[in-house]
Amino acid sequence: MTSPIPYDLWYWSGIPGRGEFVRLPLEAAGIAYRDRAREEGDEAVLRHLERMGAYPAFAVPLLEAEGLAIAQTANILLWLGERHGLAPADTAGRLWAHQLQLTVADVVAEAHATHHPIAASLYYADQKLEAERAAACFRNERIAAFLDYFERAAGSGGWLVGEHWTYADTSLFQLVEGLRYAFPQRMAALGGRWPKVAAIARRVASLPRLQEYLASGRRLAFNEQGIFRHYPELDGP
Amino acid sequence: MTSPIPYDLWYWSGIPGRGEFVRLPLEAAGIAYRDRAREEGDEAVLRHLERMGAYPAFAVPLLEAEGLAIAQTANILLWLGERHGLAPADTAGRLWAHQLQLTVADVVAEAHATHHPIAASLYYADQKLEAERAAACFRNERIAAFLDYFERAAGSGGWLVGEHWTYADTSLFQLVEGLRYAFPQRMAALGGRWPKVAAIARRVASLPRLQEYLASGRRLAFNEQGIFRHYPELDGP
Repeated sequence: MTSPIPYDLWYWSGIPGRGEFVRLPLEAAGIAYRDRAREEGDEAVLRHLERMGAYPAFAVPLLEAEGLAIAQTANILLWLGERHGLAPADTAGRLWAHQLQLTVADVVAEAHATHHPIAASLYYADQKLEAERAAACFRNERIAAFLDYFERAAGSGGWLVGEHWTYADTSLFQLVEGLRYAFPQRMAALGGRWPKVAAIARRVASLPRLQEYLASGRRLAFNEQGIFRHYPELDGP
Repeated sequence: MTSPIPYDLWYWSGIPGRGEFVRLPLEAAGIAYRDRAREEGDEAVLRHLERMGAYPAFAVPLLEAEGLAIAQTANILLWLGERHGLAPADTAGRLWAHQLQLTVADVVAEAHATHHPIAASLYYADQKLEAERAAACFRNERIAAFLDYFERAAGSGGWLVGEHWTYADTSLFQLVEGLRYAFPQRMAALGGRWPKVAAIARRVASLPRLQEYLASGRRLAFNEQGIFRHYPELDGP
């Protein structure tokens, strides 16, 4: 990566979280970026959000380049997709990739709500019983509903959209990885139910630049501060 | 509306829900559409979703025209914005309007979760105690966090973005209406905290075509089947 660094990514330094959905296509396409909180700490993120002027962000991830400051994960990916050909350029394909991304975002929000069903601002310990109820419903109904959908939506070219990987594929990969981390028993029990989804996840992990990234220190491990958390009491077959 | 009808909107017939975020800019711009479930019933929606081929939708709202089938509320609005000038055409303005829409969508999802914190598939009565806890956090923390943000984000031209109304404004209007319906005590207690947001909501309601629409039978009232529900036990000052 000897090209000039055009992008500044602002996201919390200790979790993959929603930031990882931005990092993955940047890494897969070899697009250079500075991961600001990993250089300067999370306090720098808070200061930056407070300082923003005309186009403030409600939350991170936030991606900046050339005077633009774009927030909301799906919006960032829409922008990257258009600028770098990480999604089809025609209207139908561009909106289809975005639709899939927004549906991934819905699963991500529901996955987070399994361990924080009452409020994101409360500790897990203060909503653990509610989390056990919520996680059971998510495990038993929602995982299959969503992954059945992505299996149906997957294209015939080995990817979600068209003949090449798009940001929708890197997002589906991260979603599947997250679900496997958080709900290993349930995902094992569902086994080979989604062959196309599983193949896309394997293909994403095999992209040359992603192989290198996933083995690097830049790739953050899932942990119990993030969206996908492994609490054994929330998993089950 | 004597022009040919280009759009088919698929959304549940009995609630404003997410469909209303699509109806409002269509109505405000005088764009003709058929509201299919209101003509044919909700069963037609289910049949249509099952029959979809290469670009299936996970859920409604779904908007179709000219061979395209676009789902996810924010994605539909992105498309309408581009086709009909309901958002700026330049990259910065287009993405900014979309970012605001996605943030409205986040509030909408959290508002729904106040009465269904455990699972959307369970009855309210089966998660009422959890809902009371969740709603208290939403009322006391999240409403102000989000509306403070929109107040900060509002432009100087009397709208969220630029000098004309965009789909972000019609969405902010619907959000404020929904919050006032669901949490009247809390919204009254917060009073005049967001003058710009309140002014935008008033301006949207005063758009000539929307005045006519809001007084018509096409406008569905909020009710206790939808996203914004008024349960007195979930409100408070």
